[in-house]
Amino acid sequence: MFSSQFFKLANVLPFEEAIELLKKDIKKTYGKKGDKVVQMNIDAVDRTLENLVEVAVPESWKDASGWPDSAQKATYFVDNVMQPILGQKGDLLPVSSFQPDGVFPNSTSQYEKRGVAINVPEWVQENCIQCNQCSFVCPHAAIIPVVATDDELKNAPSTFATQEGKGKELKGYRFRMQVNTLDCQGCGNCADICPAKVPALVMKPLATQTAVEIENHKFSLTVPFKEGLVKKDTVKGSQFVKPLFEFSGACAGCGETPYVKVLTQLFGDRMTISNATGCSSIWGGSAPSSPYCTNPEGHGPVWASSLFEDAAEYGYGMMIAFKKRRQTLAAKINKVLEADISTDLKEALSGWVAGMNDAQVSKEYGDKIKKLATEHASCCTSCGSGTSYSSCCSGSSHSHSSGSSCCSGSSHSHSSGSSCCSGSSHSHSSGSSYSSANTSADCMLGEILEDQNLFTKKSHWIFGGDGWAYDIGFGGLDHVIASGEDINILVMDTEVYSNTGGQSSKATPTGAIAKYAASGKKIGKKDLGAMAMSYGYVYVASIAMGASKQQTMKAFLEAESYPGPSVIICYAPCINQGIKKGMGKTQLQSKLAVESGFWSIYRYNPLLKAEGKNPLILDSKAPDGTIQEFLEGENRFAALAKSFPEESARLRAKIEQEVNDKYAHLKKLAE
Amino acid sequence: MFSSQFFKLANVLPFEEAIELLKKDIKKTYGKKGDKVVQMNIDAVDRTLENLVEVAVPESWKDASGWPDSAQKATYFVDNVMQPILGQKGDLLPVSSFQPDGVFPNSTSQYEKRGVAINVPEWVQENCIQCNQCSFVCPHAAIIPVVATDDELKNAPSTFATQEGKGKELKGYRFRMQVNTLDCQGCGNCADICPAKVPALVMKPLATQTAVEIENHKFSLTVPFKEGLVKKDTVKGSQFVKPLFEFSGACAGCGETPYVKVLTQLFGDRMTISNATGCSSIWGGSAPSSPYCTNPEGHGPVWASSLFEDAAEYGYGMMIAFKKRRQTLAAKINKVLEADISTDLKEALSGWVAGMNDAQVSKEYGDKIKKLATEHASCCTSCGSGTSYSSCCSGSSHSHSSGSSCCSGSSHSHSSGSSCCSGSSHSHSSGSSYSSANTSADCMLGEILEDQNLFTKKSHWIFGGDGWAYDIGFGGLDHVIASGEDINILVMDTEVYSNTGGQSSKATPTGAIAKYAASGKKIGKKDLGAMAMSYGYVYVASIAMGASKQQTMKAFLEAESYPGPSVIICYAPCINQGIKKGMGKTQLQSKLAVESGFWSIYRYNPLLKAEGKNPLILDSKAPDGTIQEFLEGENRFAALAKSFPEESARLRAKIEQEVNDKYAHLKKLAE
Repeated sequence: MFSSQFFKLANVLPFEEAIELLKKDIKKTYGKKGDKVVQMNIDAVDRTLENLVEVAVPESWKDASGWPDSAQKATYFVDNVMQPILGQKGDLLPVSSFQPDGVFPNSTSQYEKRGVAINVPEWVQENCIQCNQCSFVCPHAAIIPVVATDDELKNAPSTFATQEGKGKELKGYRFRMQVNTLDCQGCGNCADICPAKVPALVMKPLATQTAVEIENHKFSLTVPFKEGLVKKDTVKGSQFVKPLFEFSGACAGCGETPYVKVLTQLFGDRMTISNATGCSSIWGGSAPSSPYCTNPEGHGPVWASSLFEDAAEYGYGMMIAFKKRRQTLAAKINKVLEADISTDLKEALSGWVAGMNDAQVSKEYGDKIKKLATEHASCCTSCGSGTSYSSCCSGSSHSHSSGSSCCSGSSHSHSSGSSCCSGSSHSHSSGSSYSSANTSADCMLGEILEDQNLFTKKSHWIFGGDGWAYDIGFGGLDHVIASGEDINILVMDTEVYSNTGGQSSKATPTGAIAKYAASGKKIGKKDLGAMAMSYGYVYVASIAMGASKQQTMKAFLEAESYPGPSVIICYAPCINQGIKKGMGKTQLQSKLAVESGFWSIYRYNPLLKAEGKNPLILDSKAPDGTIQEFLEGENRFAALAKSFPEESARLRAKIEQEVNDKYAHLKKLAE
Repeated sequence: MFSSQFFKLANVLPFEEAIELLKKDIKKTYGKKGDKVVQMNIDAVDRTLENLVEVAVPESWKDASGWPDSAQKATYFVDNVMQPILGQKGDLLPVSSFQPDGVFPNSTSQYEKRGVAINVPEWVQENCIQCNQCSFVCPHAAIIPVVATDDELKNAPSTFATQEGKGKELKGYRFRMQVNTLDCQGCGNCADICPAKVPALVMKPLATQTAVEIENHKFSLTVPFKEGLVKKDTVKGSQFVKPLFEFSGACAGCGETPYVKVLTQLFGDRMTISNATGCSSIWGGSAPSSPYCTNPEGHGPVWASSLFEDAAEYGYGMMIAFKKRRQTLAAKINKVLEADISTDLKEALSGWVAGMNDAQVSKEYGDKIKKLATEHASCCTSCGSGTSYSSCCSGSSHSHSSGSSCCSGSSHSHSSGSSCCSGSSHSHSSGSSYSSANTSADCMLGEILEDQNLFTKKSHWIFGGDGWAYDIGFGGLDHVIASGEDINILVMDTEVYSNTGGQSSKATPTGAIAKYAASGKKIGKKDLGAMAMSYGYVYVASIAMGASKQQTMKAFLEAESYPGPSVIICYAPCINQGIKKGMGKTQLQSKLAVESGFWSIYRYNPLLKAEGKNPLILDSKAPDGTIQEFLEGENRFAALAKSFPEESARLRAKIEQEVNDKYAHLKKLAE
C-alpha cells in the first residue's frame, strides 16, 4: 500500500510499470502464504490508489522539534536527556549528561505516550465480574484495576464509573477497571479472554475513548494501590499490586511481557534481573527509556544486561555478590548481639539473622532494626566515633553511594581500610570473623544501617529467550542451575530467534519453518525442562499463561520460594509464529497449544521428594486430538503445505507422534 | 625418602633438625589419610638412611647425549626432529624441520622405549585360555596376541613359546600372548583380570623378562595380524586387529586409554578424532611423538585438537567437511553413470553411491572403482585432457597434495577454477549440479580417483574428559548432538579435572573430595546421559569396561553404526580418585563401581523405538549393597571421614540414597 502511494506521488518510475512490478513481487513474497493473502495484497495496491486523499497537517508541524511545551515536566533526566534523545538530538548531548557508572534511571517509559492502538478496550462496567484476568494478561500494563474509598473518589471525573467491590475483601470499596488508552497497543487479548457472561471489555476505536479515558487514567494515578486487601499470591490479588514493569515497546499481543509484568507484581520490589540478549533485552532496556519502575517506597527491579552468551553467569555473579554481602552483614549483626543492647533491639537483630533468607520475615525484622537501631547507632567513619548516626547518616542511600561527606563509609570505602570499627579490611570482606578489641556496638550498628538495603532477601532472576536458553547461553544456564544456588531463570520461549530475525533455534519444533529451516525443521525441539529436571535438585516448571493463569502463579511462587535453582519455561506466542487469528489471540493460542498437547505444562518441585511424593506434577491433560488444527492455525507450520506438501505431511505426522509420545513420557514420570 | 637422602648428602640444614621438620610435615600432609599412612611415611624416612648405598654409574654417562648410536634408525622425522627434541635440543632445530601445516607424523611413540615398569606380566603358556581379555584392557597396547602359521614361526627365537590355536577359527594356527616389556607400564591389570583357572599372567620384575622378551617382541612384529579369522566385533576378535593407538604416556593403569585403544581396533583405519583439552590431549598428542599409528595399508586415525571449549564444534566441522566433499564426489559419480561406460564400472559406481554411508560396502565398491576406473581415467588438469590417469596420476596421494607437477588438480586447485572438466568452481563446491557440455567421463573419472581417500565412509569422533563434556565444552557438545548428524562422542569420565590438577567438575559425585570441594561435594553428579537421552534421537551409552567388556563392545558398535549422534560415557578410574587397591586394580574397581550401583551401565538406542521397543536397555543389575564398601575403597570418599566425620556420614547416606534412586529411575524408564 505504502509502495503504491509512493510510486504515485514520487514519479521515479512510469506508474503503470511500477504497479506491475509491485504485483509481481507480491506473488513472489506471499506466494507460500496462500492465494488469499496474495489477492488481498494485490487488492490493497489497487484500492489504495482509489482511496488516496490529501491529509492536511497543522502549519506548526513544519518547525516541530521535540516534545510540545505543554508536555509533562518530569525529572531532570527525562526533560534534559531522554527528550533530546527521543527527538533525535542525542548527539548534541555532552558526555556529562550521563551517569559515569552507565546507570539509566528507571520509571521512564511512562513519558513516552504513544497512542498507537487502532482500537482500545472500553470497560462495560455492568458486565464486569472483577476477576482481573484482563489486567493479568495485558502485555503492556495498560489496563489496571482501581480500588478506591469513597473519599478518594471525591474529585473523580464524572465519567469515572465504579462498581461496588465484590467479595468480603473489597467490601466498602469501589472498583473500576481503568484503561490507559495512550499506552495500550490495542492487541485485544484483554477483551478476548474476558470470562464474563457478556464481555465487560469491548474494543473501540481509540478516538472514541481518549476524550474521557485520558483524564480518567490520570485521575486513577492519584488513587493508591490497595495491596493488602486481597492476597497477592492469587491471580486476582496480584493485579491489585502496582506492576513494576509497564509500557514497554514490545509488540502488541506479545507473549513474553505478561509473564514479566506479573513477576514484578509478586517480587519486583526486591528483584534483580540479569537479561540475556533478545527481545527481552530490547523491550526491557530500550534506552533512553526504561519500562522497569519503582513502587511508592522507591523499590523496584535492578535490571542489567551483559552479553548474549553470559546472562546466566552474569546473574549468578549478581546473586553471589548479594549473598556474600548479606553474610558479612549477618556476621556484623551476630557481633552486635554479643554486646549489651536493649531487649527489643536484640530481638529484632536475632529475628533477622534467623529469618534472613525469608523475604517477608527479613523485611519485617529489617524494618524493626531500622527503627530501633537508628537512635543508638554511631557514625564512626567520617564524622568520628560517637557521632550520632541519625544526626548525620540518615541521608538516602543514594547520597551515600555518590560520596557525600558524611558516612561515606559505604561498604566500598570500609573495605579499602577506613579507620572505623577497626575491622581489618580482610575480615570485612571475608565476613567470617568480625572481631576486634575496640569495636563498639554503636559504631557497628552504624555500619549495619548503612547496609540496610540488604535487609530484605532479594529475589534473583535471569531472563532470556529460547535463543539464549537453548542455544547460545545454554552452557552458562546449565552451569548456574548445577550450582544448587538460590536463583531463578525465566525462559520466554517463542521457539525461534525472534528479535534476531526468525532463525531456527534448538527450541524450534519439528516441522516449523524458520530461517535455516526453510523446508521445515527436521528434528524435534530440545527438551530443556527434562534436562533441568535431570539434576533432581532444580525446580522446573513449564507454563502457558493462556492455558492456566493459576498454574502460572503456582509456578512463579514455588520457583521463587524454592531455596535452590529454578527454571521456568514459558510458552510465548510471537509475531514470528504467524498466528492466523492474529496477535489479539495470543492468550487463546497458548491455550490451544496446551489443549492439543503441542505444549505441556508441568511443575517439578524437588521439595515434594522430601515428603515422599513424586516431584513431578503434570498439569496438562491428555492431548485432545486438535493438534493438526492447532498447526494449521500458525503459518510457521501451515505454509509448509504450500511450499513442500509431501514434506509437510510427513512432518505433521511426526509432530503428532512426538506430541503423544511426550505426554505418555511425562505421564509415566509423574505417576 | 628422597628428602631424607637429600638432607643427609647436601648438608644444608643440621641433619637431625631436618629430619624432625620432615616428620612434622608428614603428619600435616598425610594426617587425613590415616595414622597408618603417616607411620609408613615416617618409617620410610628412617629406613631410607639405614639403606643408603652408593650406586656406581658408567663413566660414559658423563658425556651422554641423545640416543645411543645403536638406536634404531627410523624415519627422517624420528631421527632428525624427534630425537633432538627428546634430547632437549629442540631449540637448535631450524623452523624448516617442521611441516608448514602443523602436521606431525604419527606412529612415533614406538621409538620412545621407556622400560619404566617395575614388574611386567610373564605369560604362562599352559594356563592361557586365549580369551584376549588381558590385551583388551591393557592401557598401553603392551600385550598383544600373536597368531602365526608354522611357516611364519620358522625363524622364531627358541623362547617364543606358542599354543595350538583354540576353536575352529584358529585351527591350524599357533597362538601366543606377547608382552612388550619396554612399553609396558607395569600396572598389572592384565594379570589381575585374567579369568583362567590358574592365572596365565604373573607379574615379574622387569629385569627377569627383558633378556628374552625384547627379542620375542621384536620377532612378533614380523608376524602379520590375522584380522579375518575371528569376527572383529567380539571382545576376543577385536584383539587380533592391530591397535592404532599404542604406547602413550598415560599413567600406569589409566582408565581412559583402554577404551580408545579398542575403538582404534574397530574403526581406526577410517577414524577422525577431534580431541578436547585434558588428559586425552596429553597422552593423545604428546609432541614430538604420537601414539596414534597406521595399519599396514597406511590407514589410521586423523587426530587434531583445538581448544578446551570447542572440541565438539571443531569435530563437527571436520565431519561436515567430509560429508560435503563426499556429496560432491557422489554428484560426480552420478554424472559419470550417465555416460557410456563399461557394465562392471557402472555396477561399481552405482554400488558405491547406494552404499556410500556404509563403511564396509563403501570400502568394497571404492576398491572396485579404483581397480576398474584407473585404466579409463584421464588426467585433465596439468597433463592436459586425454593424458592417461594411470600413466601420470597414480602417484601417492601425498605427492599430489604437496603439489607435484602432474595431477596437482587436487580438489583444492579444482575448486579455485582449473580448466579441467569445465565444472565451474561453483558447481564443484556446492556439489548439487555437476554438469557441463564438454565434460568427458574419462576426465571426470580422473577427478574421482583423486578423491579416492573419500571412498570409505569415515568414522567421526570427538574425544574428551568430564571437565570438557560436563563443563567447559558442554554447550558445544549439546549443540552437536542436537544437530542430528552422524557423529560420535566419547566422554572419558574420571569425575574430576584430572589433567588440570584435581578440581571438581559437574561430573564429580556427591561426597567426593576435590579441589573446590575440600569438604566433599555437596550436590550430585550431573546426569549427562539423561540430558542426551532427552533428545530421543541421540544414541547414548553409559559403560564401564571393567564391569562388562561385552557391553562396552556393544555400545561402541551400536554407537558407531547409528546414523545420527552418539554419546558414550565411560567410567574411567584415575589416580586422582585415590583407589586404595592401587592403579593395578582399575578394571576391578570399575567392576565394583557398577556392582555397588555407584555407576550405571545402559544403552539407549533410538533405532529400537522404530521397532516398537523401549529404546533404553539397562545393563546394570540392582545395587548389591556394597556401596559403602566401594566408597571406603577410594580416598576421594574415605578421607572425608578423617577430616569431616559428621559431614562424611551425612554425605555417605546421601550417596546411598542417590544410587538407589538412580537405579529405580532407570528401571522405570527401561520398563
